Amino acid sequence: MKVISFSTLVSVLIPVAAALFAWPALALDPGGQTVSDFATLEAIQNAANSKPGPRTVPGRSIPVPGTASPELQARIAAPYRVPAWDANPKSAAEWKELINNLASAAATAQKGVREKLGVTLEPTVIGSVKAFIVTPKEPPEANRNRLLVNVHGGGYVYNPGEAGTVEATLMAAYGGFKVISIDYRMPPDFPYPAAMDDAMAVWREAIKMQNPRNMAIFGTSTGGGMTLAMILRAKQEGVALPAAIAPGTPWADLTETGDTYKTNEWLDNVLVSYSGYLGHAAALYANGHDLKDPQLSPIYGDFAGFPPAILTSGTRDLFLSLTVLTHRKLRRAGVEAELQVFEGMSHAQYNVDPFAPETKEAFTEIARFFDKHLGN
Amino acid sequence: MKVISFSTLVSVLIPVAAALFAWPALALDPGGQTVSDFATLEAIQNAANSKPGPRTVPGRSIPVPGTASPELQARIAAPYRVPAWDANPKSAAEWKELINNLASAAATAQKGVREKLGVTLEPTVIGSVKAFIVTPKEPPEANRNRLLVNVHGGGYVYNPGEAGTVEATLMAAYGGFKVISIDYRMPPDFPYPAAMDDAMAVWREAIKMQNPRNMAIFGTSTGGGMTLAMILRAKQEGVALPAAIAPGTPWADLTETGDTYKTNEWLDNVLVSYSGYLGHAAALYANGHDLKDPQLSPIYGDFAGFPPAILTSGTRDLFLSLTVLTHRKLRRAGVEAELQVFEGMSHAQYNVDPFAPETKEAFTEIARFFDKHLGN
Repeated sequence: MKVISFSTLVSVLIPVAAALFAWPALALDPGGQTVSDFATLEAIQNAANSKPGPRTVPGRSIPVPGTASPELQARIAAPYRVPAWDANPKSAAEWKELINNLASAAATAQKGVREKLGVTLEPTVIGSVKAFIVTPKEPPEANRNRLLVNVHGGGYVYNPGEAGTVEATLMAAYGGFKVISIDYRMPPDFPYPAAMDDAMAVWREAIKMQNPRNMAIFGTSTGGGMTLAMILRAKQEGVALPAAIAPGTPWADLTETGDTYKTNEWLDNVLVSYSGYLGHAAALYANGHDLKDPQLSPIYGDFAGFPPAILTSGTRDLFLSLTVLTHRKLRRAGVEAELQVFEGMSHAQYNVDPFAPETKEAFTEIARFFDKHLGN
Repeated sequence: MKVISFSTLVSVLIPVAAALFAWPALALDPGGQTVSDFATLEAIQNAANSKPGPRTVPGRSIPVPGTASPELQARIAAPYRVPAWDANPKSAAEWKELINNLASAAATAQKGVREKLGVTLEPTVIGSVKAFIVTPKEPPEANRNRLLVNVHGGGYVYNPGEAGTVEATLMAAYGGFKVISIDYRMPPDFPYPAAMDDAMAVWREAIKMQNPRNMAIFGTSTGGGMTLAMILRAKQEGVALPAAIAPGTPWADLTETGDTYKTNEWLDNVLVSYSGYLGHAAALYANGHDLKDPQLSPIYGDFAGFPPAILTSGTRDLFLSLTVLTHRKLRRAGVEAELQVFEGMSHAQYNVDPFAPETKEAFTEIARFFDKHLGN
């Protein structure tokens, strides 16, 4: 396939696209009658969905919902994240350049966030793995003997270094917990199983620092998938489990499996489509391993004996299906599992604006769940 | 607006529709280059979503997900429910004809379902209101002193008589509870507040039949909205509250408010669109009352002091937003509230096939929640 410059393509396609997206307004006029837009659409849609099979949906413009906070509305209205969502680097060097550019911007932003939230960050090494200790200004008495471990997100490629401390910072700030954030190794230099080896090395050391019954593991997206894979691996290796987990919108299946990969495609403005960077990142990380191996796609593992779990997603999330499928599978395995789904949110958008009410709400709920299940 | 016959319209529009829905395959060829479908779509979508504002999504065909049971897959694949979803009767007589035709078919089907599930049904009158007592074959000992009250769904117009006993039957069968199913009055003859008056009259009598601490109220869609409105009204009138409630995908807002009214429009094959019968039914029921009155749209009410609640929805549900908005509002009011969301399900589809595994799973979860919160 020949690559065409983006600007050339766009200049040709925009008029066509505009006409197509506006098509209900093309208002046909059969027999000279006036037909309202809805009546036209109704007839076309009824005809297109009159037999069993795939669902035909029309192209359309979907407004920003007034049912989210103004801060979240701004995130819902935001353009697609170009080039993050549809990156397709052709070499290790191209991957690294992209990853480092994104991480550098994120790390700078995090510094300001920590200052505003009164959270401190200290680089460290645990079990030969790079990590950060993230500490709230005034941890409540009940959390003095508690310790959380965070596995950051980013499709197994994004968010090395301080860029990966977003969620640990929010949990320290809104939950009042001390958090170890694992800076696990990633592709292109370190494909599977490096990330999981690092995460388990940190966990094995962390449970020497604190009683695992006073501990929880949490993470969003890739970090949610890794959280689940860590429990599978800890069960298998006879390592102590945490008292609770919070897999947020977990990347529980690296193959394009789950209804919202399709129904929320182009609607989710964070991930947008599996055919963007996600599929490429999955292949880069798996490095030839079976994508359906439960260590890569934990939805295929056995959830019996898992700790209590709280899952978080949004109605526009490309991973809403992965979240609810994980929730249902946990429940069917007899695991106590709570689900929270936020209005209008795309993938992991509860991590994006530290000061949106929904961000505080999501982390406060997770903290409440941990407080219920963790000893102290 | 002149009405055009459906078949005329369809015959004209199908070729146009086919071309439009297939548009990613129209594969433009700028400069004679070959462009893959995804690259074309990516460029169009990036351009259309490059500025803050509404989200532009392309028309497309969405496959039936393999992540649901075969029984549920058959329901997901099913055509739109014509004429139920887009009915727009022009008179009381037309409404009644439609309602009675649908109810008659449903009542016949229910007879067979009860026989297969070993559930019996007895018509009765409670507080001058028509109702049914629905009883499981062998209620477990723990449920002997428990009693549930069900408020059926159907947009305040559908499901009079035995057609409205679907959910009571499933709860009796899978939860082992005795259930009172309220056959409340409905438009066109009896608009608001008749339905709510009937529901409250039954509740006031029911709490003389059993200790309200051993009781729960549940209902789906309109029945979920009414469940919430009953709690608001019972609080206001000083009537005893049940020990738990299960508002399933509640019609908590009769106005078109909530993101999935738009994002799941044309995807949900049960309700399809607010612009179908729903909007007409809301107007018919409200009969001039403010649609945002909390007795009609309980999401605008005060949820403080509500009993523990379990909510159920699906990823394709037009009311997914109403469900999660209700869940979040309950949680913010300090109410214990659980959420379950099923993969690929359209509105209230957990009630459609009594023998789908997801149906049994949904009701088993609600029964487990009731068992946890009800005295006996």
